[in-house]
Amino acid sequence: MNRRQFVRAAACGVLAGLPHPHFPESPDWKSWRIDGRRLNQHLADLAGFGRNPQGGVSRVAFSQADIEGRAFAMELMRQAGLDARIDPAGNIIGARAGSQPGALPILFGSHIDSVPEGGNYDGDVGSLGAIEVAQALAERRYSNRHPLHAVIWCDEESGLTGSRGFIGDLPDEELHRPGRDGVPLADKIKRIGGDPDRIAGARHGPGSVAAYVELHIEQGGILDEKGLQIGIVEGIVGINHYDVTIRGFANHAGTTPMDRRQNALLAAAELVLLVDRVVKAVPGRQVGTVGRLVVKPGAPNVIPGEVALTVELRDLSADKIASLWSRISAEAREIARKYDTSFDYVLQHTNSPALSDAGVRAVIADAVQGLGLSSQIMPSGAGHDAQDLARICPMGMIFVPSVKGISHSPLEYTRPEDVTNGGNVLLQTILRLDQQ
Amino acid sequence: MNRRQFVRAAACGVLAGLPHPHFPESPDWKSWRIDGRRLNQHLADLAGFGRNPQGGVSRVAFSQADIEGRAFAMELMRQAGLDARIDPAGNIIGARAGSQPGALPILFGSHIDSVPEGGNYDGDVGSLGAIEVAQALAERRYSNRHPLHAVIWCDEESGLTGSRGFIGDLPDEELHRPGRDGVPLADKIKRIGGDPDRIAGARHGPGSVAAYVELHIEQGGILDEKGLQIGIVEGIVGINHYDVTIRGFANHAGTTPMDRRQNALLAAAELVLLVDRVVKAVPGRQVGTVGRLVVKPGAPNVIPGEVALTVELRDLSADKIASLWSRISAEAREIARKYDTSFDYVLQHTNSPALSDAGVRAVIADAVQGLGLSSQIMPSGAGHDAQDLARICPMGMIFVPSVKGISHSPLEYTRPEDVTNGGNVLLQTILRLDQQ
Repeated sequence: MNRRQFVRAAACGVLAGLPHPHFPESPDWKSWRIDGRRLNQHLADLAGFGRNPQGGVSRVAFSQADIEGRAFAMELMRQAGLDARIDPAGNIIGARAGSQPGALPILFGSHIDSVPEGGNYDGDVGSLGAIEVAQALAERRYSNRHPLHAVIWCDEESGLTGSRGFIGDLPDEELHRPGRDGVPLADKIKRIGGDPDRIAGARHGPGSVAAYVELHIEQGGILDEKGLQIGIVEGIVGINHYDVTIRGFANHAGTTPMDRRQNALLAAAELVLLVDRVVKAVPGRQVGTVGRLVVKPGAPNVIPGEVALTVELRDLSADKIASLWSRISAEAREIARKYDTSFDYVLQHTNSPALSDAGVRAVIADAVQGLGLSSQIMPSGAGHDAQDLARICPMGMIFVPSVKGISHSPLEYTRPEDVTNGGNVLLQTILRLDQQ
Repeated sequence: MNRRQFVRAAACGVLAGLPHPHFPESPDWKSWRIDGRRLNQHLADLAGFGRNPQGGVSRVAFSQADIEGRAFAMELMRQAGLDARIDPAGNIIGARAGSQPGALPILFGSHIDSVPEGGNYDGDVGSLGAIEVAQALAERRYSNRHPLHAVIWCDEESGLTGSRGFIGDLPDEELHRPGRDGVPLADKIKRIGGDPDRIAGARHGPGSVAAYVELHIEQGGILDEKGLQIGIVEGIVGINHYDVTIRGFANHAGTTPMDRRQNALLAAAELVLLVDRVVKAVPGRQVGTVGRLVVKPGAPNVIPGEVALTVELRDLSADKIASLWSRISAEAREIARKYDTSFDYVLQHTNSPALSDAGVRAVIADAVQGLGLSSQIMPSGAGHDAQDLARICPMGMIFVPSVKGISHSPLEYTRPEDVTNGGNVLLQTILRLDQQ
């Protein structure tokens, strides 16, 4: 099996039992492991920044808890022999110099900001896992060829801010307009040590990075349910949000006969069921959800005159998303007509799907196999900084199980042994990439 | 046709073309008419209290606009020769003494408080119409046998407060607990000149009132659509509010596969459609509405974990309401099961149906016929103070058309000629009742 055949096999998820690809040999690095006890201890330490009485953390980006958590992470980076700096976009980059002149840096990391009342694993596992990998390499005095950069992206949760700054996709207009709290993003980035006036200095174009690898919790329940140890991410799904408005006529619920109504909620209810039916009607792992639905005026004794709702569609294929919406919107128009209401929508938000790199995926699969872990190829239903990095370099992601698939919750949990497995897969992946 | 037959015929809506019932004769009172121009002018004057720049009024009970509007109405009462007082519950009662010792009073009136951003006809037409009737009688020096009481009920819109006080159904607990704005109802009633510490003094038991008649706008579009001039109200529908909670499990809309969801909104959507289907499936004029529906947590990227909604059912028969709900709730349980969610409800609020009195209805029908107006018997889909009065005395209601059926809106409109017609039907009804 040559490299091309191997990569194809890996991309198709049929790697199990195949021989290793050829990598430069080295006496013992394949047996190197991270210190799992230390990594889990660092996770417990980080949980102290923004800890909530009822469990979990609120370490929202740019908050005091975030600032203190970031200082803690930078100190860990220094202990791991990394040169830790903050780039203009507010990302923390811990660099370990490489031996080979002109070699592009290999990046690996995640984020440590959380949603309000979030958990202790989303982002944290990959961030501290990256620092732990650097520590393991330092302890073994490993001479890396590529510069190795452990990265903690700024403000993942509210819009992948740091990783967008890194790839040059953080427009001045967005930096300077007041946020929901009235404070412009630029001021917040300054608060954590970034330099938004020099945002162009954060920008990395295509071809400037050798590869990016992110370790993360799955946030879904597939690995946990199947008893698998590692997920090798095939890609990060695209997300479209369609903001729909159905307009009827608000009227007295007592004096308006049943056959004289223009009830926007009846049309909306049919649309909610339609989205579910259409998304399930075709094979694949696409998902579709109406999570937001607001009825106006919303009083028990008034016929709903207007319903505003959001249809979210996710899939690895942007074409499939478009085709699902085309079916849904066509049928929705018929539904609206049936109830003497009107149907309008805007595509309020779109995230393009980001496929992982087949070569990086193959390397991760090889590392998993070398460690004797069980795995499967799977999409990421959630968004990640990795989707931005995929626009400038080969990208790969390593998932570890989320117990019961719970995330963005104080109940979020990943077992210590799974954290350790994830750290080892990351270590072995970075070693392989460095030696390619 | 004797009186009993007449009453039965009237109640069945088959009066047209039948001979008049026998009433004591009097030379000319059947030709008496109110002053329609004056009544419409008084409506325009009252519209100045709480007027909104965009049209209509906000004359919410107990507000400054309400207090000033009430003072204006009391002045009109005095001009009409009425002895105007405020009872302990805050109702304004304008009395014209009767000639026959021991005769019970005949009451007629409505309310002048409005919903926020309401119109200029709901309540106002019947209140100023009652005063206009008294004025017409005063101008003709009519010697009434019964005491005649023109009444403006306090705070109709937020819960029939005044009429409930009048029939002794305003519990101390309700008077003294803080309202949504923190102020107890008792304090508000004091503000408008009532005396809640002596609330028992407002109470009228069964047999203490000869009859109650209320003129009101229809608030629905039936008369307007059919081009009819007067509605004779068969009864005021009962209203049940069932507060339903459907509980599923809130989870990540990206990482949770379609077949692993407990989506509360899917179950709620089926329930919304079920209510409409069940209510339409049986003959009759019952109505059913889901007007309030709240999705939690309500974010586009989170599967709805809980939906709270209110099912409202209205009909003249409490049995029919119960039987509709029995079908709906049984099927709703099946629906909830299908989506792996739970279904719970409480009967949050109930208003019993209140039938109008067949005798009063017959008198109104006779008055309508004497005036040469077109009419039909119809239910009131909205609640009114008259439903409370029906618990202590024979009750009747007179509807005039609402253009396009719009109400509780600045666009609420009743044509001046219809206002005048309503005033004349009220005058002729009171004259007939007084002479019975």
